[in-house]
Amino acid sequence: MTSSDPTKPLLRALDGEVLPHAPIWLMRQAGRYLPEYRELRASAPSFLDFCYTPQKAAEVTLQPIRRFGFDAAILFSDILVVPDALGQKVSFETGEGPRLDPISGAHDLAGLRDTLDMGRLAPVLETIDRVRTALPAQTAFIGFCGAPWTVATYMIAGRGTPDQAPARLFAYRQPDVFAMLMARLVEVSAHYLIAQLRAGVDVVQIFDSWAGVLPIAEYEKWCVEPIRAIVQKVRADIPGAKIIAFPRGGGAQLLRVADIDGVAGVGLDTSVEPAWAAKALPATITAQGNLDPLALLAGGAALDEGIDRILSAFAGRPHIFNLGHGILPPTPVEHVEHLVKRVRGG
Amino acid sequence: MTSSDPTKPLLRALDGEVLPHAPIWLMRQAGRYLPEYRELRASAPSFLDFCYTPQKAAEVTLQPIRRFGFDAAILFSDILVVPDALGQKVSFETGEGPRLDPISGAHDLAGLRDTLDMGRLAPVLETIDRVRTALPAQTAFIGFCGAPWTVATYMIAGRGTPDQAPARLFAYRQPDVFAMLMARLVEVSAHYLIAQLRAGVDVVQIFDSWAGVLPIAEYEKWCVEPIRAIVQKVRADIPGAKIIAFPRGGGAQLLRVADIDGVAGVGLDTSVEPAWAAKALPATITAQGNLDPLALLAGGAALDEGIDRILSAFAGRPHIFNLGHGILPPTPVEHVEHLVKRVRGG
Repeated sequence: MTSSDPTKPLLRALDGEVLPHAPIWLMRQAGRYLPEYRELRASAPSFLDFCYTPQKAAEVTLQPIRRFGFDAAILFSDILVVPDALGQKVSFETGEGPRLDPISGAHDLAGLRDTLDMGRLAPVLETIDRVRTALPAQTAFIGFCGAPWTVATYMIAGRGTPDQAPARLFAYRQPDVFAMLMARLVEVSAHYLIAQLRAGVDVVQIFDSWAGVLPIAEYEKWCVEPIRAIVQKVRADIPGAKIIAFPRGGGAQLLRVADIDGVAGVGLDTSVEPAWAAKALPATITAQGNLDPLALLAGGAALDEGIDRILSAFAGRPHIFNLGHGILPPTPVEHVEHLVKRVRGG
Repeated sequence: MTSSDPTKPLLRALDGEVLPHAPIWLMRQAGRYLPEYRELRASAPSFLDFCYTPQKAAEVTLQPIRRFGFDAAILFSDILVVPDALGQKVSFETGEGPRLDPISGAHDLAGLRDTLDMGRLAPVLETIDRVRTALPAQTAFIGFCGAPWTVATYMIAGRGTPDQAPARLFAYRQPDVFAMLMARLVEVSAHYLIAQLRAGVDVVQIFDSWAGVLPIAEYEKWCVEPIRAIVQKVRADIPGAKIIAFPRGGGAQLLRVADIDGVAGVGLDTSVEPAWAAKALPATITAQGNLDPLALLAGGAALDEGIDRILSAFAGRPHIFNLGHGILPPTPVEHVEHLVKRVRGG
């Protein structure tokens, strides 16, 4: 499950191969911009139930593969299944985003499990098994988790927050409790990724969506080091495991993440200059990104210029085409078709 | 009004002088964390009325000077007085932030004035006159405006938005109209800063609070170039005018702003590594920043470590101590007292 399959372009790109056309997938490619997704989503009572229903989660994972022939499927799930499987109350309010019972101190942390309730996560692993058997031979399969910092921001604030102030303040005020929470998230995230790889994903991506708000000393401590620890643990268990890290925001600091031993690819957010990244990233690291989702939504000249600038910057080095952030729900399907065609030289 | 007064440490720092202790002021130092501010604010019917009442605006500008003896006062006002003086409807809902009649195309733009209604802004200039005569001799006085990109994000979205998507999408979809809006904002912002300098501020700061969301090509076009144009216009009218630019977010790209001819100081946001900035910024540029407002709110060891790291990084080069973002309303006044004392070696 971890050695590269020569028929899967995305795995070859992660091995450092320069392909005639960059393999392509899109963050949130299984999502609300697709009518077939919206239809199936309407059939589930809650978002978390939807994630935990293998037949439905597998189906929406496969929808964008059928429609666009992307080079990778990404498991349909959510980063907050980890706090859920630690026993924290998690729900999703329609149009409001996630709600959790916030962790405000040592007492709340003590009330959570030390390890994941794998019974709770069994439907995720079953989803992986279903998708794995249904995917075309050339399509890679990506699992994922949230990075500890990003997951902690939700666990502490109890919701999404504009600048993750509650978690940053918690880390300043209760550094020992925060360190305990982060250490636990490192352990269980590594465990969760190992379980996904064993269940059949080819690659795992670690999403640190809120890394960009961390002041520099904290970036090292709460973004780079936890990701490094997870990568070590996963690869100690599964030698050669392919891992993509996506530290969103933080600009040039992504090079510290790219320097982590065992990271094969680094996701670039929208604000990263492709020409700079092509030069600055180590030659052994595969660049993944980084079209502006708003350019994909806008279409026309803005889209073509955005695509071409990325393709020319990464020509001659290993590259996976992607967005710099998740695809936006109002994105026209035709724009995605156009993108795939243009990336493949059509 | 533009030659450096040797009794004002902040102006000496902006001239490139290395002082025994960095001069200090704080973004949003006239604000809700002060009980005397909250008391006076309660007496005004609306936030915009408050900004436009010289006696009150001058008083809150002076409050933090009296209490903490900061090295600079910053005019109490808002960046949205510019769209207001262009004829766009602007209001502030309590607890909700600004609301504007959004600009959705060429028609809306045509409905705005070409130049500022200086009658509307007369109270701002009167506020400057009042503050100027009341300030201690050693206290510098800072005026400001929003950078065109940041102001445009509000004018287009009609409110604050998490990632400024409406303005970015507008720029992709209607590039000509967007360019017209930006050109107009460059003109009127320069005019407004010149008026402030003539009325008696010593320095002006250009706030590009949302520069960080711009993909790199757009950063050059919509952050760097408009600020460059404003700086040129202001200094053509007032040779030697002292200007601080604050492009928030965008990491290493702030060096492009620091390279603008005529920029004396660059504000560093919280995510900028002080040691990196101390090395990377041209020796002639004064670094301003960049304590995490959450460290100031937290106090204790987190605060002291944050202060000391900044002071040691910028030792031996021109530096103005500040936060990396505005002070937060729940910040205890005692933490600010402690900060000022520590920066001054107490």
